[in-house]
Amino acid sequence: MAGYSGSKDDYLKRLRRVEGQVRGIARMVDEDTYCIDVLTQVAAVTKALQAVSLGLVEDHLGHCVVHAAQSSDEEGQEKVREAADAIARLVRS
Amino acid sequence: MAGYSGSKDDYLKRLRRVEGQVRGIARMVDEDTYCIDVLTQVAAVTKALQAVSLGLVEDHLGHCVVHAAQSSDEEGQEKVREAADAIARLVRS
Amino acid sequence: MAGYSGSKDDYLKRLRRVEGQVRGIARMVDEDTYCIDVLTQVAAVTKALQAVSLGLVEDHLGHCVVHAAQSSDEEGQEKVREAADAIARLVRS
Amino acid sequence: MAGYSGSKDDYLKRLRRVEGQVRGIARMVDEDTYCIDVLTQVAAVTKALQAVSLGLVEDHLGHCVVHAAQSSDEEGQEKVREAADAIARLVRS
Repeated sequence: MAGYSGSKDDYLKRLRRVEGQVRGIARMVDEDTYCIDVLTQVAAVTKALQAVSLGLVEDHLGHCVVHAAQSSDEEGQEKVREAADAIARLVRS
Repeated sequence: MAGYSGSKDDYLKRLRRVEGQVRGIARMVDEDTYCIDVLTQVAAVTKALQAVSLGLVEDHLGHCVVHAAQSSDEEGQEKVREAADAIARLVRS
Repeated sequence: MAGYSGSKDDYLKRLRRVEGQVRGIARMVDEDTYCIDVLTQVAAVTKALQAVSLGLVEDHLGHCVVHAAQSSDEEGQEKVREAADAIARLVRS
Repeated sequence: MAGYSGSKDDYLKRLRRVEGQVRGIARMVDEDTYCIDVLTQVAAVTKALQAVSLGLVEDHLGHCVVHAAQSSDEEGQEKVREAADAIARLVRS
């Protein structure tokens, strides 16, 4: 079980949509679509992936971090440390 | 012809790799992989897409914007306006 | 007491440095410094502020969220919800 | 003369406002304001700085890059290269 397991189907649906959008961008590039229109589509996919990340972060905090904190202070702090690193990678990506 | 047409094959290769990575993330979710490991992969894909965007912006400036500027001041300014909007969407995505 | 109170002096020192950097950028603009050099400085300040945010998020998770989770499941979830919204604003800023 | 010189007063006004906002955040920290409220303010300042950057990029493209392109293809490409690097720093900050 992962923190997001309760919404697994929703994440899978969103990821399949992203996969289709990336394939659509490749088709646009293949057909020499105007740069700005390609950029608009890439920005839309980036935003969709970001939303997936934010959902995963919230699920992780609400399950894994909360449970760790309830198990012991030390486990809670360890999970917080790890989550904070993941959030930093997200903010910088 | 688009601004990126000279590097079309390179962009297509990168987009196909991104598509495969997104499929890999769906597989990870399907197998209940630990949240943090999924997040790390999503951040990697977001970074790859961002690199594609930055390449497209540079190709667009170096071809479409430069040519427009050489054709007339007015056309140059119009292309700059449009490029600036695309850059803003990129920064905010 | 806030989640960051243990590192208050460090945050105050960093914020004072940021304040000085912003004043430095205003001086650069006033002296018509080359655009790219001004942009490099603005990016440095943005990065510094982002680091402050990431520190505050980690302190908040490690104190306020952990304590709420230990107090009750409901309080934990409420704090997680609020933290997730703040992280989303951070990622999108 | 820099690309933004025509809007210098506007930039100076915005930077002075940002400086005041940073000072306000330091005050909030000094008074142990709730973490989430501090984070909201830091996100607002980051957004304001980002808007300054996007304005500077557009001014730079519309003046320095357009003029360089009209002077020679080589100068145009050189300025585009430099601008693309600055945009990448902005996207990654």
